[in-house]
Amino acid sequence: MNQRIKFSRSEKVYMPGTLFPEIRVAMRKVKQVPSTTFENGEKVITPNPDVYIYDTSGPFSDPNIEVDLKKGLPRLREEWIVKRGDVEQLPEITSEYGRMRRDDHSLDHLRFEHIALPYRAKAGKCCTQMYYAKQGIITPEMEYVAIRENMNCRELGIETYITPEFVRQEIAEGRAVLPANINHPEAEPMIIGRNFLVKINTNIGNSATTSSIDEEVEKAVWSCKWGGDTLMDLSTGENIHETREWIVRNCPVPVGTVPIYQALEKVNGKVEDLTWEIYRDTLIEQCEQGVDYFTIHAGIRRHNVHLADKRLCGIVSRGGSIMSKWCLVHDRESFLYEHFDDICDILAQYDVAISLGDGLRPGCIQDANDEAQFAELDTMGELVVRAWAKNVQAFIEGPGHVPLHKIKENMERQIEKCHNAPFYTLGPLVTDIAPGYDHITSAIGAAQIGWLGTAMLCYVTPKEHLALPDKEDVRVGVVTYKIAAHAADLAKGHPGAQVRDNALSKARYEFRWKDQFDLSLDSERAQTYFRAGRHLDGEYCTMCGPNFCAMRLSHDLKKKEQKD
Amino acid sequence: MNQRIKFSRSEKVYMPGTLFPEIRVAMRKVKQVPSTTFENGEKVITPNPDVYIYDTSGPFSDPNIEVDLKKGLPRLREEWIVKRGDVEQLPEITSEYGRMRRDDHSLDHLRFEHIALPYRAKAGKCCTQMYYAKQGIITPEMEYVAIRENMNCRELGIETYITPEFVRQEIAEGRAVLPANINHPEAEPMIIGRNFLVKINTNIGNSATTSSIDEEVEKAVWSCKWGGDTLMDLSTGENIHETREWIVRNCPVPVGTVPIYQALEKVNGKVEDLTWEIYRDTLIEQCEQGVDYFTIHAGIRRHNVHLADKRLCGIVSRGGSIMSKWCLVHDRESFLYEHFDDICDILAQYDVAISLGDGLRPGCIQDANDEAQFAELDTMGELVVRAWAKNVQAFIEGPGHVPLHKIKENMERQIEKCHNAPFYTLGPLVTDIAPGYDHITSAIGAAQIGWLGTAMLCYVTPKEHLALPDKEDVRVGVVTYKIAAHAADLAKGHPGAQVRDNALSKARYEFRWKDQFDLSLDSERAQTYFRAGRHLDGEYCTMCGPNFCAMRLSHDLKKKEQKD
Repeated sequence: MNQRIKFSRSEKVYMPGTLFPEIRVAMRKVKQVPSTTFENGEKVITPNPDVYIYDTSGPFSDPNIEVDLKKGLPRLREEWIVKRGDVEQLPEITSEYGRMRRDDHSLDHLRFEHIALPYRAKAGKCCTQMYYAKQGIITPEMEYVAIRENMNCRELGIETYITPEFVRQEIAEGRAVLPANINHPEAEPMIIGRNFLVKINTNIGNSATTSSIDEEVEKAVWSCKWGGDTLMDLSTGENIHETREWIVRNCPVPVGTVPIYQALEKVNGKVEDLTWEIYRDTLIEQCEQGVDYFTIHAGIRRHNVHLADKRLCGIVSRGGSIMSKWCLVHDRESFLYEHFDDICDILAQYDVAISLGDGLRPGCIQDANDEAQFAELDTMGELVVRAWAKNVQAFIEGPGHVPLHKIKENMERQIEKCHNAPFYTLGPLVTDIAPGYDHITSAIGAAQIGWLGTAMLCYVTPKEHLALPDKEDVRVGVVTYKIAAHAADLAKGHPGAQVRDNALSKARYEFRWKDQFDLSLDSERAQTYFRAGRHLDGEYCTMCGPNFCAMRLSHDLKKKEQKD
Repeated sequence: MNQRIKFSRSEKVYMPGTLFPEIRVAMRKVKQVPSTTFENGEKVITPNPDVYIYDTSGPFSDPNIEVDLKKGLPRLREEWIVKRGDVEQLPEITSEYGRMRRDDHSLDHLRFEHIALPYRAKAGKCCTQMYYAKQGIITPEMEYVAIRENMNCRELGIETYITPEFVRQEIAEGRAVLPANINHPEAEPMIIGRNFLVKINTNIGNSATTSSIDEEVEKAVWSCKWGGDTLMDLSTGENIHETREWIVRNCPVPVGTVPIYQALEKVNGKVEDLTWEIYRDTLIEQCEQGVDYFTIHAGIRRHNVHLADKRLCGIVSRGGSIMSKWCLVHDRESFLYEHFDDICDILAQYDVAISLGDGLRPGCIQDANDEAQFAELDTMGELVVRAWAKNVQAFIEGPGHVPLHKIKENMERQIEKCHNAPFYTLGPLVTDIAPGYDHITSAIGAAQIGWLGTAMLCYVTPKEHLALPDKEDVRVGVVTYKIAAHAADLAKGHPGAQVRDNALSKARYEFRWKDQFDLSLDSERAQTYFRAGRHLDGEYCTMCGPNFCAMRLSHDLKKKEQKD
């Protein structure tokens, strides 16, 4: 099993730290060809600067690292974690279910072969990035993300406010999350917060209609290739535990899950049989495998469930409908809400972040910004403070389906009610009438809400509402969301964000086609389309034909004016 | 040659007028199946209302009309036009070039066979919709668009401000344009203005790399099928004159062109040889063929051309670069600007609208909202007043490439400087880094600017910047822009816009899959994706599998609560 990611005419480079000279921050460097102009009849060659691109592809795109999926990725952060002295390696895994799976030899053929023993905080110690940040400690992870975010823009003379100290402050105050389970040392540090690049999450996972472990790992790598910043494994089918081990061990980006899905599988899909004990064991199982963040639908309160009755589309979140049903069946408060502090105590021991799931998110335009949605948001605002009190990093999930004019209220209310915790939204879709194109309906909303302050956007593929995405759908979904996130970065004025736009546009204007392709979000597609246009050689494309190119005319004008 | 458009389980219906009972406004009616619910164990069947959809497909989707492309579409408006008594049929066509083509028998095999003699306003008379509107006259065209815009929403109890009188006022004050060349009576009336549904334009046309007349007509019909509201023929290749005749005669939506393209072909591509006389003859040629609006780059002034020199991407409008070059070569003011009143005098005789072309639109993020762009906008504001003085309907073209945070300034400035004339923008693209996906980068900007007040959006296909679009690209481009336009309509609160969203979402929630498909913008694609998901029967999709469907759980909850 081998996976290799190639980007044409790009070089994998590593930038060293200053506080931590040993860290090596991965980036992709695109080398451009020089520009050729004519001045007074003389040919003038002017070099074009290298463009540094934020790179989520991990070791898969480093030709000097031979990745063997059977062994997993290099454990980049393990030394940093151990060196801090706050964690210990356990003699064996803690979760009962995990042990049961381990001891079931019928699963041996499915199992990842090199499972390491898990780490956990020592008794009385805390190992979360938020804890360190609050203590005024800058970790190597923090310097890593500071360097990563800036994409070497200082080399071009662009000032940046993103320093390791700034990163520390943002994490300390809960405005940003650096998901970094101590048991997922393979992940390259990244940060989620509204003063940083807008991130995108991609979802993978098998369902009952099943796909194999190989396929899921392949999808994970594929998602990282196209630019997914985090990866949620939403598997609900068979062998979730084993599949997850393969994914985490080979995933260079943080991994998220929705533990209630697996808990429900453990009680054979019977919502009423869910218990805190089963859920708790599932949390520990996944903490020790290395999941970096959990979606937890603790914002659903017994007395709020009925608020969804008035809706056109009821409850459309799986986790939300599960927990609502549980509350109604047992006629009591949800165990996620009641045990929220216990949950935080567990997660703090591994530095797993909480993504507070919006179980009552609107599932259509009509239901947007309603009482149910906002009641849950209020609860999430209460819970995020409780998470922070335990030094657990946390962010808030958001809708869903929202028309353009109601997006702003979502963002402003989230900032206010949730005390500046990062917002992580699914789209939102700005209309319901385009199944088959919901990557687009949602990218419109995502760009808007990203601009207004949402820190991470959960991608939507063309198959949303219709079927599970295949590889091509994942690619289209990721690229579409990179567009939305980047549009938001430009609008927010993120330092260095516009460097790539300007470089690509200059290449376009100068007919440096290859540079244009290499700087594109999807270089392969751009080239395929270009070639399909039967372009023959030089300075035109088939859109206007050889005699009708505005850009060429525009060049001629410049030359003419220089002569005059 | 036959073209038939079918929409599954939809009926072509016609709504009569009140002021003009003889008019029949075409719509598409989707019949839904009833909802089945259970109350106290009893099965309850509740009918769902018909949904009326704005329909641009013309007679092609009416099974009672046999369209023969060789004969062209029924001449819907001819009687209305003639009845007003302001026009006369000419004994022969006026343009010299048109006569030359007519007399060239080597073209006979290409020629549309049933060319009617053109109409023109009688001496001393005016025949434009703006003229009638200013006189307080409501035309059948005005009532037609009022009915069309409302999509029968009153039947559902939705109030609407869109009355024939409102339409008249909007046209009289220049806030809306009803493109309606008296020589294109086949077109169904539609309106472009910010208090109406946001419209979309699609571009077709051959270039030197050529496509046949058949292909262009097929693309025109195809564009109307997917929802294109107007169609621009941007041909620059051979036989433009003959191709245009075929398109106009078979096009149920208004047709726009950029006459300078054809004028340039007439001087063999030599910009310096362009003259007012050649351009003038081209205008008349196209007025008499039935083109409904002309893009005219009269906003380019000699003294403003140099403003583009500072840019990263110079001039990216074809018409803009042609006229800039002409100004520089001759070192004089453009003939489009100097002869603007003469142009208006010609256009008024046929009720051809002017689309003031933005020759200096920005071609990349870096160049957005710069001095060149805004200087041209000021000129366009001056020209639109001059057009109105001649009773010529007019709208203003806009960018291009603009980051999200600079879109608002574009819209506000356009409204102010151009005195509320409708804005018609190309996207704008909100980032430059995604060639191959520019339908998406631009739809994000289009939805935003549409919400803020842009009246018509010019579509962009996935091949933008790379190649000429094929049929599949046209489909994707049109549907993507229908999404952007509809998102804007929802945000603006257009009466009845949300009816379709609500109907589709209710169908989705009730697992009425067929209704969901029929109400989709692209029903065929939705069904293809759905089927690819190997869905077997009832109430779930492959996204969650049979045991994990939030919507089904949500239904169960409602039932449970009803029981409790």
